[in-house]
Amino acid sequence: MRKKIFRNLCVLLAFAVPAAGSAAAATGKAEDYRALVDKLREAGLSRERAFVFLERITSVGPRLTGSPQAAAAVDVTRRLMEELGLARVHTEPVEVGHWVRGDQAQASVAASPSRAAVPLAVCALGGSVGTPNRGIAAPVVEVRSLAEAASLGASAKGKIVFFNRPMDRRTADAFAAYGAAADQRVGGASAAARSGAVAVLVRSLTFREDRNPHTGMLRYDPGAPAIPAAAIATADADLLSELLRKEKDVSVSLRMDCRDDGKVMSANVVGEITGSELPSEIVLLGGHLDSWDLSVGAHDDAQGCAASLEALALLRDLGLRPRRTVRAVMFMDEEFGGTGGRAYAAAPQRRGERHLVAAESDRGGFVPIGLAFGRDRKDIERISPYAELLRPFGVADIVPGGGGVDVAPLIAGGAVPAAVMVNAQAYFDVHHSALDTAASVEPRELELQAVILAVLAYILAQEGL
Amino acid sequence: MRKKIFRNLCVLLAFAVPAAGSAAAATGKAEDYRALVDKLREAGLSRERAFVFLERITSVGPRLTGSPQAAAAVDVTRRLMEELGLARVHTEPVEVGHWVRGDQAQASVAASPSRAAVPLAVCALGGSVGTPNRGIAAPVVEVRSLAEAASLGASAKGKIVFFNRPMDRRTADAFAAYGAAADQRVGGASAAARSGAVAVLVRSLTFREDRNPHTGMLRYDPGAPAIPAAAIATADADLLSELLRKEKDVSVSLRMDCRDDGKVMSANVVGEITGSELPSEIVLLGGHLDSWDLSVGAHDDAQGCAASLEALALLRDLGLRPRRTVRAVMFMDEEFGGTGGRAYAAAPQRRGERHLVAAESDRGGFVPIGLAFGRDRKDIERISPYAELLRPFGVADIVPGGGGVDVAPLIAGGAVPAAVMVNAQAYFDVHHSALDTAASVEPRELELQAVILAVLAYILAQEGL
Repeated sequence: MRKKIFRNLCVLLAFAVPAAGSAAAATGKAEDYRALVDKLREAGLSRERAFVFLERITSVGPRLTGSPQAAAAVDVTRRLMEELGLARVHTEPVEVGHWVRGDQAQASVAASPSRAAVPLAVCALGGSVGTPNRGIAAPVVEVRSLAEAASLGASAKGKIVFFNRPMDRRTADAFAAYGAAADQRVGGASAAARSGAVAVLVRSLTFREDRNPHTGMLRYDPGAPAIPAAAIATADADLLSELLRKEKDVSVSLRMDCRDDGKVMSANVVGEITGSELPSEIVLLGGHLDSWDLSVGAHDDAQGCAASLEALALLRDLGLRPRRTVRAVMFMDEEFGGTGGRAYAAAPQRRGERHLVAAESDRGGFVPIGLAFGRDRKDIERISPYAELLRPFGVADIVPGGGGVDVAPLIAGGAVPAAVMVNAQAYFDVHHSALDTAASVEPRELELQAVILAVLAYILAQEGL
Repeated sequence: MRKKIFRNLCVLLAFAVPAAGSAAAATGKAEDYRALVDKLREAGLSRERAFVFLERITSVGPRLTGSPQAAAAVDVTRRLMEELGLARVHTEPVEVGHWVRGDQAQASVAASPSRAAVPLAVCALGGSVGTPNRGIAAPVVEVRSLAEAASLGASAKGKIVFFNRPMDRRTADAFAAYGAAADQRVGGASAAARSGAVAVLVRSLTFREDRNPHTGMLRYDPGAPAIPAAAIATADADLLSELLRKEKDVSVSLRMDCRDDGKVMSANVVGEITGSELPSEIVLLGGHLDSWDLSVGAHDDAQGCAASLEALALLRDLGLRPRRTVRAVMFMDEEFGGTGGRAYAAAPQRRGERHLVAAESDRGGFVPIGLAFGRDRKDIERISPYAELLRPFGVADIVPGGGGVDVAPLIAGGAVPAAVMVNAQAYFDVHHSALDTAASVEPRELELQAVILAVLAYILAQEGL
């Protein structure tokens, strides 16, 4: 997932899921679905098909927006939807950017011009301009915030600004810790450029101390020069910081040949179980097909695509066709601009359609711990009669929230957001790095997400909101 | 962990943790501790010390009861307690059994006496007798239950009985699935022996399809001959089952030189923060030092020892000395007879002591999802005013439960059981097998458990029950 509004609302706004028996009035409604939920659970957990889908998606490789692998992922998921017997399987065009990383970024640090240089583990941030061919060599100044970078003024001129505020380990909610540090990656380059800096290094967004750089999108402010920006691995950031503390003339050399390669055409992939009575009313489940390019993006976000597809596959297994449409959308370009989400919402096919619920799965393929749903208590009250059905799958809480880059235009148009909340303690260990591999996903945990999505989608498509 | 009463009470008996604001009467009490809980969280999550403790314990190797490595673990944890500045650090003697696995067990299957034999991945079950030196070769009969084995009668005579009922994947609660299949491992040998069988193979207790056998304790019924018993890896169990379906003369050869090596002296390790006002009233946190011998037992149960020690270390970090005693106990021999738990309860040092709460951590070092506490609603009501303090660490539910082999004698004597409930979806992937390594523990998830234990122990030691 890219930058989002990370809502750490669990504590303040949590609604306890009613224990069985304590919500007598609601029991009738939940009872209607209990046998079906048992069947969905048995169909889901008896094998690990969501993981099989994930492997089919990750088998094409890293799926950077605009890349040949992203195009291959469109074909793979479209074929998969056809195999699953989904209805109205089609692609919808999306014009996307095509940024190219080029060769691996190279960086090294020397304590003074006469001393030997030590290599640093870095990678270009997504969207960064490259350096000149000969690279950039400059003194380094370390800061902890955008405000500090802005306050450097002329003293930053000609330097490399090094953003080194770590994700705050003491924050129990890993998403909140990420959200509180991501401004350096997104806005660091422009903040430093305004003070005359020639490049930036940004500490990787992970709790882990290791030598894996973590990439992710940056955003250039049109009012500032676009300067090269690289993520630096946490262990290397600590090394650099220590050198800066001990030595006077620390300088870094950085060379990156990443570049913007213009626009290319890509696509969202759409398939559905068409509603039997109200086909134009839609419950949407989706994830994003694109990933970063340092690994195959298993958690981010092959899992979200796979869980969404598996939810529909489970409904098909049981021959279910709810009153309203349940649709799976594989969005292109969540990471690199969100063009897929906007293209979906604006597509001519949307005319006459109404999206009741938009569930974006993009928080990692980890074990479910809750459900984010709607904007407020009123939204939650609409599904709380069914909350006890989800409890055996790990949904202990239902809190307001959900949403994300891909479904934001639908939410703005009135759809209710939804998302399975998962254990994210280890998510940022792998997020946007070379470690986000299929082996880091536990198939059974992913399957539980798919079962929850299937239950939720079916009930909402039957009952409406 | 060994065989326990796995209580799948979440759905039936769950008490929702009150959301902030909805339990106004309780707010006062929780408020008294909020600042302290913040400090414990910051001290805990700022580093990964529980994992460091775990590594010190696992560094001695597999810690089978009675083994030299188990003795080394006693020394390591005693030294660790001293380094942490705990009070009254000492060991208490425990007489334990010493079973020796010998060389790796060997097994092979042949579709008929004239066909080539295929090796099978097996390991001796804990406590099994060995085979004669030349091994045992016999036809195989497959069953799914103890009852089916008993019903074989004379037709099992001279045969190897193969218990092949898998853990039911469709059960969402992994512990419940384990509990429902473990009777084959515990009682299979004697059930088969009563029908005249010469050995048993038991399908490994894991959801995974792989070639890792999972060991664990068996129990010989004194009324039946003790016959050799081996666990067979799930993939090999499927192979064997398919051969039995297709061929007529399937026979297995099994050779194991495991043996009982008599009794040896071992020890529990005890240390504490002595209560300032009521030192003889005790809140106990503990795990077991011994492990199975196929790996270093990181989840089972170095993590339980490590989390308990870290909870006390966190209280020490903050200079806290509650009114009652908070004690850490590293129990010996949970896996092989539970002698450590019984010896602790019966030790002369217990005279005049009263254990209010006994929290055994033995469910794996995974992310917390809830708390098991006490026997009924009344017990839970005593701590529900503080439930909201635990919520940010993953405690979404408090359900009756807790307890285990080590603290069972204390519970029988009136102590209230407690345990952090964790995500166990992947626990049985590694449990009792070669896969239970330190690398399979996520340090931050383990630290969250330690923080919960520290908060709970401190509040209970201050407030009593």
